[in-house]
Parts: sequence; structure tokens; C-alpha cells
Amino acid sequence: MEVRYYHHHDEFPLEGGGSLPGLTIAYHAYGAPSPGGDNVIWVCHALTANSDVEQWWPRTVEAGRFLDPGRYFVVCANVLGSCYGTTGPASVNPATGRPWHGAFPGVTVRDMARCHKLLADHLGVRRARLLVGSSIGGFQCLEMEALYPGFARNIALVATAARAEPWAIALNESQRMAIELDPTFGDDDPAAGARGMAVARSIALLSYRGQVAYDATQQDDRRGEKLSGYRAAAYQRYQGEKLRARFNAYSYHRLTRAIDSHDLARGRGTLEEVLAGIRARCLVVSISSDTLFPAAGHRLMTRHIPRAEHAVIDSDFAHDGFLVEHEKLNHVILNFLANE
Amino acid sequence: MEVRYYHHHDEFPLEGGGSLPGLTIAYHAYGAPSPGGDNVIWVCHALTANSDVEQWWPRTVEAGRFLDPGRYFVVCANVLGSCYGTTGPASVNPATGRPWHGAFPGVTVRDMARCHKLLADHLGVRRARLLVGSSIGGFQCLEMEALYPGFARNIALVATAARAEPWAIALNESQRMAIELDPTFGDDDPAAGARGMAVARSIALLSYRGQVAYDATQQDDRRGEKLSGYRAAAYQRYQGEKLRARFNAYSYHRLTRAIDSHDLARGRGTLEEVLAGIRARCLVVSISSDTLFPAAGHRLMTRHIPRAEHAVIDSDFAHDGFLVEHEKLNHVILNFLANE
Repeated sequence: MEVRYYHHHDEFPLEGGGSLPGLTIAYHAYGAPSPGGDNVIWVCHALTANSDVEQWWPRTVEAGRFLDPGRYFVVCANVLGSCYGTTGPASVNPATGRPWHGAFPGVTVRDMARCHKLLADHLGVRRARLLVGSSIGGFQCLEMEALYPGFARNIALVATAARAEPWAIALNESQRMAIELDPTFGDDDPAAGARGMAVARSIALLSYRGQVAYDATQQDDRRGEKLSGYRAAAYQRYQGEKLRARFNAYSYHRLTRAIDSHDLARGRGTLEEVLAGIRARCLVVSISSDTLFPAAGHRLMTRHIPRAEHAVIDSDFAHDGFLVEHEKLNHVILNFLANE
Repeated sequence: MEVRYYHHHDEFPLEGGGSLPGLTIAYHAYGAPSPGGDNVIWVCHALTANSDVEQWWPRTVEAGRFLDPGRYFVVCANVLGSCYGTTGPASVNPATGRPWHGAFPGVTVRDMARCHKLLADHLGVRRARLLVGSSIGGFQCLEMEALYPGFARNIALVATAARAEPWAIALNESQRMAIELDPTFGDDDPAAGARGMAVARSIALLSYRGQVAYDATQQDDRRGEKLSGYRAAAYQRYQGEKLRARFNAYSYHRLTRAIDSHDLARGRGTLEEVLAGIRARCLVVSISSDTLFPAAGHRLMTRHIPRAEHAVIDSDFAHDGFLVEHEKLNHVILNFLANE
């Protein structure tokens, strides 16, 4: 599936101040809109993913699955600030004719949600049968609902949170400290900060997988015969290098700041009040062992959103469960849609 | 209380190969040995602590507490490879007349245990009423028992493990990646790698405190009024700087490698067999929310050590619980000693 682009030529003001002189939004679309336009599923992606849902969310964009392209018109846009085609630090700043790199401004989840709406308008999508996002994709879903109530008829919020809590912020700060430690961070270069980002990724992996999954999957065969060269250590370096080869450290830095500032209630009242104002039918999905966005936050959302139900997927894979447990996830989301 | 030094002038062979041309061991001693010498408590400290137990273990070296200096002769030695007086990377290499820095060899927990025995012999301590250690202090206690059975009559193993599991190793590797990212790491300078170590410490803190404690203690007062400057982020930087001001990055790097290689069973048979051979009476203490050295590993130890009992301290402070919950810890250790 080919990536497509929407070029928005108007100035785009940013929540944190300043503006971008126009935008490019990269997106994927699978399937076709039905004549009545009531078969749209809008997918919001997580931190380092892209608009190609088929590539990063295993076994979802398939016949019989919740993103069945034979049945639904599935759209996913790369988020603002990322490096997979949508405007971000690696994009050219029209004012200078050179990439933004470290001069790219800070963005928020609300800015991302406003980009999604621009694309939806461009595509003639006025409402979605389902708005679905996992991790910070869920952040975007919540902001979409707050900014554009009525856009989504159903929302599936998977392994996510109504606001970033201290634990998530602390994890992000350690990652940014690592990126900022890289002496190339700040350079006017697309590879700036890349080694720091590799360290950051290894930290993030800890929070994605958790103790139980590491201890279950990274045991050494001959533990008692060596004093170094352990598998879990190699895994950390390998995962860091993998991200280094495909992502931009300025994007990573900006997107983690966007996570920190995520707070559905900012400027809108108490969190409970804002949740109580959500009109869409919601499914909140927890991964039982997820400590990045733990079930406690999900229970809070479920308690206050008027039409919400809560499903807990039992898994040892912590936050990564939203990718690993695609069978169980498919089951609960299909059920949610079938019972509308 | 003043730090004291024992200078050992013989060559000290290292488990990982090579040797040190003599050693200095820094230690603290509280109270006085009884005439029969049966009132010794030997304390083993954790990663970045020192021999001054009174300073780092709150409310323990006090009348009525388990390290009551009016009753016990309490000894604690700074571990090999550290930077609080015992030979380590900041020490002078007699062969060059200059500090070792990055040339300091790798050490293991067994090497540390052998240093403890040298000091005990020097002090005329032939046996300990109690051998106690938390975190990697517990690693040392287990190695002391394996190398010198009969030295300890009772052992208290607090928030520790019989071997380092993948989760702990992965956490350490990310920390070493951060230290190695510091461009000064490798320099012949006591401050080499210090900024990297600050990042490493911020990562370690995540594993010491855990999600529940961060979310409980690092909330922002005016969360909904800002887009940056969160308390949890400031905490990460503050904790990093605090360690940077007091510790050596080469020590930190070597000591985390010593943790990784900790395996009571290395070269001794299966872990179950080695545990089954422990003759001392043991108390194994878990902190309920500790994921760094979780209760599962403690249950394994308790199951296989012939005379072992298991106490779980209910706490939200994760691994840090061994410092925070000193009241509860004091209670269980005093009970353990009283019921001998």
C-alpha cells in the first residue's frame, strides 16, 4: 500500500505558540468509502509508528479482522512532528529552504488531532464508525472527541490514558536526557542525536515489555558459564540500533514532549467533568500487565465516560500487549462493534 | 563515625582474570565485640552506598534496632570497585602511580565476598551472628555463605536475588549505554562519564521506585495549566545530578557489570542444588511491589534453602522499600533474631 499526501497550504497555529506555514500530512487508506460514508475507521498510531497500519499492527488490516478493508474504509495519518511523511523536524522549513531539525517547534496531542481533522475534511470524511488508537494513538482519539464531538460514533481506547502521569513523564525525561547527552544533538543534521535516541529506545523498551516478559523471553542458555555477554544486554543494544536506523531524534524528542503534555482536561475543567462530557460509545482496553498506561487510569475513564465499557486483556507482555495480543484485541473490538 | 582502612598487601586475584597488586578496604565498625565474639553483625551494602551504614540505612544503627551498637559489633565494608575508600577505579594503580580510571579491571560479587573475608580475618571476626544485605548487599551475603559456610549463623536477605535475571541486566545495560554515550567516558579523569552516569541514575531510579510510587509522589499541583516543566521530569534530573556529585562513573559501570554476572550457581551446579546446600538460618524479605528483585525469586530461595523463612513487606515503594520501610524491616529482622 502506497503512502499518500495531503498538502495543506494555510498557516497552522500551534497550541504551544507559533505556527507552521502550511503542512503536509502523510496517510494510508485501505478499502473504499461506502456510498453513505458510514464505514470509516480512523486509526491513530503510537510514538514511532507510521501511517501504514498494515505494517505495524499485526493481523488487523485483513478480512474478518476489525480493520477489514473489504468492509471498512480505514484511514491512518502519520502524526505531526513524526518523520514518516507528515511535517516534522526532518521536513523543509519553507522560510529557510532547509530542514527544520532542532528548530522544529514543540507540538501537542491537540495539534495532532487538528491535523487529523484537516485530513478528514480533505477526504470528505464527516464521521467515523470507529475511531481507534493504542498508546498515544488513544491520546489522539480522546482529543479528537473533545475537539470534534460527533465525529466518532464509537471509540476504542487501547492501552492509553486520559493524561500522562508522572511515571510516563519520568520515563520520557530519562529518554530525553539520553538524547541530549549525544554531542551531535543540536546539529543541523538528520542523524543528529541518533546514538542518544538508541539509548532512549532501550529505556522505552523496558517500559513496553516489563519485568515478567523480559525474564520470560531473554534468559541465557548457558547462564552459569559466563561473566558477560548476556542476551538481555544484547537485546537492549539491538533494539536501540533498530530505531536508530529508521527514526529521527528530533522527532523522538518532540513527540515525547507531546506525550508529557497530554492532559484531556487542560483548560477544560476537571478530568472527571471532561470524561463525563464524552458522547461517543467507548471501549477501553487494558493490558493486564501494562504499567506504562495501567488499568487504574482505564478504570477512571470507564467510570466517568457515560457510555463506556472496559475490557482487560490478560497478558504478560505489558504495554507491548497491544501489538502482541492482536488476536484477543481483535476479538474484543469486533464484539464492541457488533453489539452497537 | 570515622571510616577506617585495612591495607592488604598481597596480590588479589580476580575471578574474571588478572589481579590487583594489593587492596585497601574501607570499613565502618559500630559498637564493640563481646568477649566471646558472638555479637558480630556483618552488613553488606548496595550499589552506590558506602561503609557508613548509619548514613544510608535510616533508623537501623540505633538502640533497640536490629543494628543496635550497644548490643552488637556492626561491621560494614565498602565494596571492591566502589569509590568510597576501598580499591576501585579512582584508586591509584601502584604500577603507574596514577589512578586506574577506565583501566580498572572487571570485578564480580565473588571478588567482593573475598574482600569481606580478608577484612573479617584482619578484625579477628571468625563468625557473624547475622550477615545482612539488601539489594546487591544480599548478593554478597549469598556468596559469603557459598564461599565460607559456617561464617554466618543467620542471614537476612532483603530485596535481593540468587542471580541477576534478564530484567535487571537489561536495566543495567541501558544505564551503561548512557554512560558510554558520554564523550568523556574513557578519559583519564575522575569526572569522566559523569553526565552519562547522571542519565544512568535517572534510569535506575525508575526501577527503584516504580510506577505506583512515582504516580503517588510526583504529581504536579497545576497539571492542567502547563505544557512543560513537570515535577517528575525535574526529579529525574535532580536525582541524576545528586549521584553525579558523589559517585564515579567507572565505579558505576564496573559495579553494574558485577550485578549482571551475579549467579550463585555459576560453576557450582544447579541453583536449586546450591541453595539446598546453605546451612545458615535464613530470612528472605521481599518488598511487595519490587520488580527489580521480585518476590518470585525470593520464593525460589525460600523453597530450596533448608532453614529459610519468607517475609513480605507490603509497600508501594518498590525496590526502595528496603530503605523507606525501615520500621517494618526492623520488626521482621528483630523477630528473626529473637526466634533463633
